Amino acid sequence: MPKDIITPREKDYSQWYLDVIKAADLADYAEVVKGCIVFKPNGYAIWESIQKGLDERIKETGHVNAYFPLLIPKSFITKEAEHVEGFAPELFEIDKLGGDILADPYVIRPTSETIIGHFYAQWVNSWRDLPLLINQWANVMRMEKRTRPFLRTAEFLWQEGHTVHATEEEAESETLMILNDVYSDFVEKEMALPVLRGRKTDKEKFAGALRTYTIEAMMQDGRSLQAGTSHNLGQNFSKAFNITFLDKDNTLKHAWTSSWGVSTRLIGALIMAHSDDEGLIIPPRLAPIQVVVVPICKNDEERAVVLEAVTKLTAHWKRKIRFKIDDRDHVSPGFKYNEWETKGVPIRVELGPRDIEKQSVAVARRDIPGKAGKSFVSQDGLLEHLIDLLETIQTALFNRAFQFRTDRTFVVSDEVELGEAVAKGFARAFWAGSRDDEDKIQNELKATIRAIPFDQPETAGRCIVTGVETTQQVIFARSY
Amino acid sequence: MPKDIITPREKDYSQWYLDVIKAADLADYAEVVKGCIVFKPNGYAIWESIQKGLDERIKETGHVNAYFPLLIPKSFITKEAEHVEGFAPELFEIDKLGGDILADPYVIRPTSETIIGHFYAQWVNSWRDLPLLINQWANVMRMEKRTRPFLRTAEFLWQEGHTVHATEEEAESETLMILNDVYSDFVEKEMALPVLRGRKTDKEKFAGALRTYTIEAMMQDGRSLQAGTSHNLGQNFSKAFNITFLDKDNTLKHAWTSSWGVSTRLIGALIMAHSDDEGLIIPPRLAPIQVVVVPICKNDEERAVVLEAVTKLTAHWKRKIRFKIDDRDHVSPGFKYNEWETKGVPIRVELGPRDIEKQSVAVARRDIPGKAGKSFVSQDGLLEHLIDLLETIQTALFNRAFQFRTDRTFVVSDEVELGEAVAKGFARAFWAGSRDDEDKIQNELKATIRAIPFDQPETAGRCIVTGVETTQQVIFARSY
Repeated sequence: MPKDIITPREKDYSQWYLDVIKAADLADYAEVVKGCIVFKPNGYAIWESIQKGLDERIKETGHVNAYFPLLIPKSFITKEAEHVEGFAPELFEIDKLGGDILADPYVIRPTSETIIGHFYAQWVNSWRDLPLLINQWANVMRMEKRTRPFLRTAEFLWQEGHTVHATEEEAESETLMILNDVYSDFVEKEMALPVLRGRKTDKEKFAGALRTYTIEAMMQDGRSLQAGTSHNLGQNFSKAFNITFLDKDNTLKHAWTSSWGVSTRLIGALIMAHSDDEGLIIPPRLAPIQVVVVPICKNDEERAVVLEAVTKLTAHWKRKIRFKIDDRDHVSPGFKYNEWETKGVPIRVELGPRDIEKQSVAVARRDIPGKAGKSFVSQDGLLEHLIDLLETIQTALFNRAFQFRTDRTFVVSDEVELGEAVAKGFARAFWAGSRDDEDKIQNELKATIRAIPFDQPETAGRCIVTGVETTQQVIFARSY
Repeated sequence: MPKDIITPREKDYSQWYLDVIKAADLADYAEVVKGCIVFKPNGYAIWESIQKGLDERIKETGHVNAYFPLLIPKSFITKEAEHVEGFAPELFEIDKLGGDILADPYVIRPTSETIIGHFYAQWVNSWRDLPLLINQWANVMRMEKRTRPFLRTAEFLWQEGHTVHATEEEAESETLMILNDVYSDFVEKEMALPVLRGRKTDKEKFAGALRTYTIEAMMQDGRSLQAGTSHNLGQNFSKAFNITFLDKDNTLKHAWTSSWGVSTRLIGALIMAHSDDEGLIIPPRLAPIQVVVVPICKNDEERAVVLEAVTKLTAHWKRKIRFKIDDRDHVSPGFKYNEWETKGVPIRVELGPRDIEKQSVAVARRDIPGKAGKSFVSQDGLLEHLIDLLETIQTALFNRAFQFRTDRTFVVSDEVELGEAVAKGFARAFWAGSRDDEDKIQNELKATIRAIPFDQPETAGRCIVTGVETTQQVIFARSY
């Protein structure tokens, strides 16, 4: 079993990403199903951690889960004008059933605003039925020309929240609450990834939304990854699907709706933000295995003694930390160290005969490779030490990503500076340009406005393309 | 808000089932997507409880989760001869993508043996790669002529386990372990539903399996519901998809595979087994809400006092039991009692001004309607009382279902007795008949062999159709 070769980030960041996925055994390409991947157990386990953390937050903020059909009548997609324009070219269409041609074809959901809107129109009658706060965990399909595992796949897994409100203010407040209290909170605290929060420009907003809000995270090549979006859909879908309610004032009104989602692309964000040239690094709070214990022994006699010591040492760890004892006897400790490093386990504990004598263990941090991250620790109070260390690593990963983003965020005042900045990271610029100006910059610099950030300056400046004075700043970046 | 009318079971059991689903707000019909339903929040929450209990058991027995593509190349389905015969008439076919005709059409997975077999052939090389123990939580689609919510829907949710082994014995042992330690254990302990365990006849086995094992549960009309199946696939799929491995003896061998699944039809089983003419009854261990607290008050002044007492009373309940305080002020206590009864919450706690004086509460059991199930209990130690009572109810529901099944299981010795027995419940009969004999009985009596039960008699008897002496008994029943 030779070691998988990982291309260094400096040499080829794109290849590095694919190499890490292969070496950590996270996914497989499904050539037989165009644009799809298999989420292998190591990759899927990260998604399960993400689901758990998000589902808790979604429920704590008053939402419940439900499940709507995979198939949507094709005619539904055309009911909202911008929506059909955005999604039609990507749709998988079902024309046959058991060999018979269908009179009314279906499409596989690319997102579920339309089919859910259809049901909400039947469920919502009175102001007493509002707000309606439902989330769905589901698979969706959109054809993609270029596949990148986790980041861009024809089928992906996600959650999509769909809510209905009596007023625009309530819909807006929900949309922002999800962005702040659910998405940002989860990505920053659990994924250890700082996010930029803001609003999308009209060019970049969701097809059919009034306003789209986004969280954007910087990857290690300085590009931005859209980690989650939350849409105030206004009355666009309630008018297309006739979601009306009798208000307290006894008049019939169109409701206001929101939708919001994050997907398995978060796995891609996690890989690209934290990992290194040795392989994957998983933040401790999300790690399916937080600590791996490797017994060190030269022969069967030593093996029995060491395994007994390991069993004793870890006897009270269950449900306190997520750990694994790697007691395979056909591979060397060195092989094991390498394997668990590649797979991103935050802490490795080594225990051999000399450690038993000294009543100590060796503890190695995944985020600090080599000797710098290794220490010898007493077996007394080891569990408490490991629990503290996991939090230390979690914080260290966040701080490192935060520092990286700070170092790579530039304030620019003209297009030349903008071009230099987006080659390295985020560019903050005053902006009063048109949609055509946005297109021009995208064509010339391969960069887009990722967000109109919530934190805006107190004084005005001149737009980098039009020269017009404005108080609005935007963040440009190249993106995934 | 008028009370939903529930047809009594005695009058029309089928209509009763649909009425309970409607009254408890568990599902909605998706007429626009043929054969599909919406799993509404109350119904989906039961599925989430089922998922949790099963996922724990699946993982504790050494399996990991993964996710494979929704779409399967149509050509894959035809690779295993029995498999294609079983599934071809039910397949949803994708012929178009973004308006373009696809040269190689896909089908939506009806089950994933074929696509997973394709990947396993690439992943399995050596005996060291075995056993491969993977489970998937997913949606699948099979066209059904008649839709019944939860029991028979075109799209349903399930888990499907797919494992690979070096020997037939190991595959057999896995297949049985899943049936016993995962499925039976879950359904009996968590769903409070006794199951009959056994093997399917060749007529009734999975399309492509060597042997299919089943758990069957009796519903309140005496029919059997197949609650889960586990298949030893032999080498049928490993030969069709070329899953081979280099064994310890250095020869290349075809592997042995298994697959096993339970689905959202378990929600149907839960409804039909336990519920009554008042509505749904959910076993406490699965209940999303185990205890509902209803404050009783006549005016705003009382309301403030009672709500304060309720808050104080329930302050330490969090994470101990799953409870809800129903503090709505626009509906009466009676309305609330009725609503939570209909929705199947196991225990209702009532608290009013007189209870505050007496330092007691009223506690009503859902499984024993009316005064017989109501008692007055001290507020001291109430939480412990409720925790005990939840277990008491769980056991009572199991015992009731067990007694019901016992009363409705008959040993029969000829076809006349068989006909009488299957009109009421299970019929146990000696059997040495052919597949044609099975077909004949199905045509005449609308009953099938549900299982060749694991518990077999010690002495022989005469087959009820052929008169031949045999030691094999089978269980006949009408089924869902």
